[in-house]
Amino acid sequence: MIILSPGPVTTSDATKAAMRRDFSPNEPDLLALTASLRRRLVAIANGGEGYTCVMLQGAGNTANEAVLGTLVPRERKVLVVVNGHYGQRLLDIARAIGVPCAALEVPITEPVAPEQVEAALAADARVSHLAVCHVDTGTGLRNPIEALAAVARQRGVGLLVDAIASFGGLPIDAPALGAEAIVLSPNKWLEGVPGMALTLVRRSTLEAAAGRCHSFCLDLHRQWQSHETYGGWRFTPPAQAIAALDVALRRHAEEGREARLARVGANWRTLVDGMRALGFATVLRDEVAAPVIATFHAPADEHFDRERLFALMRERGFVLFRGSLTPFPALRIGCMGAFDQATMREVVRAVEACLAAMGVTDCHPAVRPEAAE
Amino acid sequence: MIILSPGPVTTSDATKAAMRRDFSPNEPDLLALTASLRRRLVAIANGGEGYTCVMLQGAGNTANEAVLGTLVPRERKVLVVVNGHYGQRLLDIARAIGVPCAALEVPITEPVAPEQVEAALAADARVSHLAVCHVDTGTGLRNPIEALAAVARQRGVGLLVDAIASFGGLPIDAPALGAEAIVLSPNKWLEGVPGMALTLVRRSTLEAAAGRCHSFCLDLHRQWQSHETYGGWRFTPPAQAIAALDVALRRHAEEGREARLARVGANWRTLVDGMRALGFATVLRDEVAAPVIATFHAPADEHFDRERLFALMRERGFVLFRGSLTPFPALRIGCMGAFDQATMREVVRAVEACLAAMGVTDCHPAVRPEAAE
Repeated sequence: MIILSPGPVTTSDATKAAMRRDFSPNEPDLLALTASLRRRLVAIANGGEGYTCVMLQGAGNTANEAVLGTLVPRERKVLVVVNGHYGQRLLDIARAIGVPCAALEVPITEPVAPEQVEAALAADARVSHLAVCHVDTGTGLRNPIEALAAVARQRGVGLLVDAIASFGGLPIDAPALGAEAIVLSPNKWLEGVPGMALTLVRRSTLEAAAGRCHSFCLDLHRQWQSHETYGGWRFTPPAQAIAALDVALRRHAEEGREARLARVGANWRTLVDGMRALGFATVLRDEVAAPVIATFHAPADEHFDRERLFALMRERGFVLFRGSLTPFPALRIGCMGAFDQATMREVVRAVEACLAAMGVTDCHPAVRPEAAE
Repeated sequence: MIILSPGPVTTSDATKAAMRRDFSPNEPDLLALTASLRRRLVAIANGGEGYTCVMLQGAGNTANEAVLGTLVPRERKVLVVVNGHYGQRLLDIARAIGVPCAALEVPITEPVAPEQVEAALAADARVSHLAVCHVDTGTGLRNPIEALAAVARQRGVGLLVDAIASFGGLPIDAPALGAEAIVLSPNKWLEGVPGMALTLVRRSTLEAAAGRCHSFCLDLHRQWQSHETYGGWRFTPPAQAIAALDVALRRHAEEGREARLARVGANWRTLVDGMRALGFATVLRDEVAAPVIATFHAPADEHFDRERLFALMRERGFVLFRGSLTPFPALRIGCMGAFDQATMREVVRAVEACLAAMGVTDCHPAVRPEAAE
């Protein structure tokens, strides 16, 4: 089975095999593994001594909540870029946990422009942090974090990057960005399994964050203290997910980040070109899309049956992702995971066969792409 | 390797093998697995229709934070029984997240008496909830939750049970207790792997808890809504841990809870008798100890070297637990996991051999047991 989701993705056999053992939570081997993973994740972002990796149990949202709750002073405010489902999610988290926040709303098909952020920051001196989703997997939209970081630096505003859908693939240079925190995922570009909430945080930022978090378990400062004092986790670590990430990161290092980006980029190109040849329209224009996931408008053809497509594709060994996060019917097909463009060509051929089986002859969208904007 | 920790414990090969596959997060098979696990966990506590299982990513502390944060009204108060590390932890969580709380402190070697709880509740009308750790794995102390539940029911106070170290082994009847919530672990008596924060909650309690939680991710009401509306998780589920728990619960059902209690109880008896024969003294008297973990005073003998014991035991295939949670030096040896008393006899023989290798001739404690109280 090939998983075609925005993550968790298809992992290698070696990564899965790494989970086939038990661990006692504070044994030296697990502490060493934790320390090693933390170092290697910092290195992927060129983090150096200025950054540290803090690991929590959980998922990407857990990490985003931990970052917002631990790093944003409650007398200040976070400006959140909202141009997709996961930008909205950052805003929802901030609101739910009582972190003062404001939204910078942009259409879901458009990257935010640095000038928009500049203007929003200029208009509100209370804002201490800018939070932005690098790649929004609701569509695949990519925001220009380098340019946004320059604005943030210039205005002395801390940058919080949700890099869940980009870390390990797209280039991210933490010190060049000057980011205060970067949230990442073990189970997307890195091809590990879910179960961990991972963050890279600037040490100086963490040092100033003691006692701020609204949560006991999601407090990055406290978890960092455990990492630093005895090398471990405050609470029972997801040991098998840790072991899987160790193998996954080894594979990532062997392939190299740029080669992985090229491989997944080729998956994406193959998918987008192939689906367009079948008549599908993408929600995004290519220039603003990250090669992570491609989102296609659902065909208008009355024979198109989403559930049947999922079932037919599954029979062919491909698991399409069921979640749709756009305000119009769409298909999201993930491009990350332990497979290459030969597999993606099979995916396109399988879609073609499934459409034929359903009697779909026209794949043009029900909603014209322009209408979505 | 046999893990002798209070959890995560040694799991079966079949349980570990279940993790060797990828899952797309919202596929029907994973939703069905989630629904099935929820039903089966409720059934273990005889929960019936009045209770539901809510699953979060995380560890036991995550579940305790979610319960305290979601269920205790902020204008009321939770009374926390503190007679061990994990009772203290419940109090620490409540304090950290702004849940008004009071401690009922008892020596760590003594179960709390119903009369003490009765008196504490009578003295403070603001208290709406009683939180108690069923078995405190800092020592192995067991609190009498049935008698405490009777007091709580009589006074109209909600009972929150941290059953992390007892669920699946010791009898727990949720409706008979009238508990509002029971926190459990996938990786102790149930012999699954870590990665999930599991709770059983009374439906009527959950219904009244909308919008209360201090956290976005740890909100039991919101997660419950996702479970009920589409059967899934709000955020990326720890799929491999879910698959492992499915197999682990099947094995638990095949063995039967009472038989598992008898097996682990025999492990405990074998350990305690064997260690006493070597001269060790337990921290607890047997009548107040749960057969989960046994805690022994560290020998006074100057040749006793804790780190060396760990290393020597490891060479023999046994991983002792390094954490010590008592105010005096102690050894904690876990009895749960996929092994039986024949293995535990080997453990005792291995300890004997290790002591001989270290030149330890006297295993009597440095601190007299009485002094600990």
